[in-house]
Amino acid sequence: MTVNILFAATNERWASYQAPLTAALQKAGLDFDLRTDFTPSEVDYIVYAPNSSVQDFTPYTRLKAVLSLWAGVESVVGNDTLRVPLARMVDDGLKRGMIEWVTGHTLRHHLGMDTHLFGQDGTWRTQAPPLAQDRPVTVLGMGELGRACAGALASLGFPVSGWSRTPRTIPDITTHHGAQGLDAALSQAQILVLLLPDTPATANILSAETLALLPRGAIILNPGRGSLINDADLLAALDSGQIAHATLDVFRTEPLPADDPYWAHPSVTVTPHIASATREATASRVIADNIRRSEVGEPLLHLVDRSLGY
Amino acid sequence: MTVNILFAATNERWASYQAPLTAALQKAGLDFDLRTDFTPSEVDYIVYAPNSSVQDFTPYTRLKAVLSLWAGVESVVGNDTLRVPLARMVDDGLKRGMIEWVTGHTLRHHLGMDTHLFGQDGTWRTQAPPLAQDRPVTVLGMGELGRACAGALASLGFPVSGWSRTPRTIPDITTHHGAQGLDAALSQAQILVLLLPDTPATANILSAETLALLPRGAIILNPGRGSLINDADLLAALDSGQIAHATLDVFRTEPLPADDPYWAHPSVTVTPHIASATREATASRVIADNIRRSEVGEPLLHLVDRSLGY
Repeated sequence: MTVNILFAATNERWASYQAPLTAALQKAGLDFDLRTDFTPSEVDYIVYAPNSSVQDFTPYTRLKAVLSLWAGVESVVGNDTLRVPLARMVDDGLKRGMIEWVTGHTLRHHLGMDTHLFGQDGTWRTQAPPLAQDRPVTVLGMGELGRACAGALASLGFPVSGWSRTPRTIPDITTHHGAQGLDAALSQAQILVLLLPDTPATANILSAETLALLPRGAIILNPGRGSLINDADLLAALDSGQIAHATLDVFRTEPLPADDPYWAHPSVTVTPHIASATREATASRVIADNIRRSEVGEPLLHLVDRSLGY
Repeated sequence: MTVNILFAATNERWASYQAPLTAALQKAGLDFDLRTDFTPSEVDYIVYAPNSSVQDFTPYTRLKAVLSLWAGVESVVGNDTLRVPLARMVDDGLKRGMIEWVTGHTLRHHLGMDTHLFGQDGTWRTQAPPLAQDRPVTVLGMGELGRACAGALASLGFPVSGWSRTPRTIPDITTHHGAQGLDAALSQAQILVLLLPDTPATANILSAETLALLPRGAIILNPGRGSLINDADLLAALDSGQIAHATLDVFRTEPLPADDPYWAHPSVTVTPHIASATREATASRVIADNIRRSEVGEPLLHLVDRSLGY
């Protein structure tokens, strides 16, 4: 029987996904009809971007699952009309891209690259940076992405600490957890990477109070979620020198408005939400595999626990 | 019997090495006298920087070996008065530092960081970079440092090719060798890393002819030796757009003179010979271990083959 798959996302997404998703569904051996419009009662699966026009799931009476194109599902997880399983995107391409952004910007700050990039003035500044082994890095968030980035940094020699809500044991990473573990996770971090999900518990986790726990002159990298940072507190900490630099890829409002103080601040680098770009080819394979699993009665991968919010 | 060790390098080096080298020699269990001056005929070993005042080894009649503090030995290898074994510095700290510089600048160019660093103008430039798996990198030189950097890049997902004078088989690296292999090594390289030793055979290996073998818009990283590049040819290739950017850490004349055209060129980043800084603590352990080996009749590590020049 043909499986009806509704692609509910922007037209731009459809243009980039139609071919790779069709190819992946074919390769998964599915008999399917993939379209951007259906009578709701005929839809079996929704491939979903949270900013799509589908916000009320009530008319989708035979829906089996919703497969998010995004890793972050905070804007759909509280939708009361959604009564079927919801899977997050955990895409190897997304993970690889995140590792590259985090590793690249960690090394940029570690090596003091900006001094050279902005100092091509004929001055031979010979001071060599310390080795990575002398540069403690902490990653907040030990999910898929946090663990992957922490592992990549550890393999380059950085001493890496990881913090998560619940206790974890991860090879080569010093782990801390819970409210009482945050102090220890932050106190040694010369570079801090934020890779927590956006939940009520993580909102503003980086505030005046927690920024003060970092060693003076620490660097912040946020490729996670804009809501993790109290922006006014971060700007104050940058002005005081408590934080030497912040490289931010995500914001409460995106695109970041041109008059946002982050753009003009000399100690802030804005990157335009590129760290966690989902790659169509690899993401399509994840979605096709989950539809195949559902059809043969296997459990969905990357299922969202809606009580936790991710 | 006490081993007399002459430290022949600049006063600045002595200031930074005296403590860690003394500690390393003690830890190696040696009975030693480490000084910056001796009657030449009493010296057993010379810890040596090629820019030191010792240029004539003839008076050092009981010398057993010369232990270079530098990885590059081109300025001493042809010294006819040197008749004892010469060991290069192969320092884990140096290697780690080189991996960090090469990985950091490869990721910088791969991620298009400069576009963002120099474009903090309120423009949200959303184009995500390709994944590392779609960015071929070639490393010229498959010695200690070349292999280490190639391996680090491969583990981040870059497809890495390596080129060396003689054939080599290296896990996860596509290898090419000899004059006839250079074309294949260069033709796919979006990023090219130069890690060859400075020998007559490698001088100006990057010339108009070889630059033209690279794909248009390639990036050059040179943390190896200044002599590997024909500077006029590189500047011409940058001006024509054949090469999109060159990040250079080593030069024929160092410090690079303030009026050198590299400083002012918009497509060149100069870094001040920091990629391969030897770290005192780790380098001291390498030297102490080689003196211990020599004293107990074990072969020296990192011995220079003076017929090859490295």
